[in-house]
Amino acid sequence: MSKLRVNGFALSMDGFGAGPAQSLEHPLGRGGEALHGWVFPTRTLQRVVFGKTGGTTGPDDDFAASGFDNVGAWILGRNMFGPVRGPWPDEEWKGWWGASPPYHVPVFVLTHHPRAPLEMEGGTTFHFVTDGIHAALAQARAAARGRDVRIGGGVAVIRQYLEAGLVDEMHLALTPALLGEGEALLAGIDLRRLGFEPTRHVGTESAMHVVLTRTARPPA
Amino acid sequence: MSKLRVNGFALSMDGFGAGPAQSLEHPLGRGGEALHGWVFPTRTLQRVVFGKTGGTTGPDDDFAASGFDNVGAWILGRNMFGPVRGPWPDEEWKGWWGASPPYHVPVFVLTHHPRAPLEMEGGTTFHFVTDGIHAALAQARAAARGRDVRIGGGVAVIRQYLEAGLVDEMHLALTPALLGEGEALLAGIDLRRLGFEPTRHVGTESAMHVVLTRTARPPA
Repeated sequence: MSKLRVNGFALSMDGFGAGPAQSLEHPLGRGGEALHGWVFPTRTLQRVVFGKTGGTTGPDDDFAASGFDNVGAWILGRNMFGPVRGPWPDEEWKGWWGASPPYHVPVFVLTHHPRAPLEMEGGTTFHFVTDGIHAALAQARAAARGRDVRIGGGVAVIRQYLEAGLVDEMHLALTPALLGEGEALLAGIDLRRLGFEPTRHVGTESAMHVVLTRTARPPA
Repeated sequence: MSKLRVNGFALSMDGFGAGPAQSLEHPLGRGGEALHGWVFPTRTLQRVVFGKTGGTTGPDDDFAASGFDNVGAWILGRNMFGPVRGPWPDEEWKGWWGASPPYHVPVFVLTHHPRAPLEMEGGTTFHFVTDGIHAALAQARAAARGRDVRIGGGVAVIRQYLEAGLVDEMHLALTPALLGEGEALLAGIDLRRLGFEPTRHVGTESAMHVVLTRTARPPA
């Protein structure tokens, strides 16, 4: 069955999934780029995001790669799509990723401000969804045609889907980055109560990878 | 100079340093024993706590061992000393560790309830301090005679010393344990603002070890 997944989402050692004060200069918030230490050098990231050959192999790369397996659609929060806030001033901003974004499938962007779909090179189309997380998930599932839906982030979007009991599986990368402040992914969320169990972990020099699987239904 | 240190303090992937509902049966709270996964099999823990030979070597053991280097006194919270709450009913409870506790130096136990010092076998004496964290630190420093003072825990005690700007160095072990609820070590504490930097990290199969060093004075 089609799953709703989170993959490769990195946490700082103090529990933040992004730093404070996101901006054009700091897409992951101030200091947030340190969260990428485990994935940046991998072969998968170098290929998918930068179109380069080379890069590291091993468990970090395996996790990066499996995050793209069997993904038929993505869901992103608006801040993960870009730093623009409020109503779209124009059609200028087309995401952080240039003309050919690394998704290659439909991407559903949660926003309060309507905008026409945006077709990019390489199979990625951004759809802007203004009627909430359930509507976005329904549209993403339909678009994924039986494959999984991956939530790319950010923190607020993952938290909403977790709290609604809709996430089936999460791979988090616990990193040695220290942010001090930012957006806490799990504060006030009891993953055990939501039915999650840690089903696998792999420690590397750069991260402690933890896979959490929802094995029970969350309480209504 | 004598440092105030935290060593080998384990966090769950959701940021807890102990589970909920500590009791005689669950000294680390419900589910909290999973925090010990990285240290339990090590040669150091087997020797120091159980008096056994054997056990694993490698980075996990190195961190366990260095936690005992140059320690001249310990500070513990009362709940780390035992599950008894309120005024001491008698002298019966003598800690979790049997006749010869693994400290072998003076140990200062923070409590609201006075009790006479308790001399154990092997060089450990428990002193019960009722006048707060600064008094306990002053007594521990005097007893340590130039060596370092180690805070054993628990969470509430470490948080108090952190917030007071008194901790010089922390080694935390980020583990794949999932607790769901419990005592969050760092919630609401901005370690960057307190002057900490991550100065070293070592990832193993069982934990991401992070050493944080206070390189700047915390704001007054």
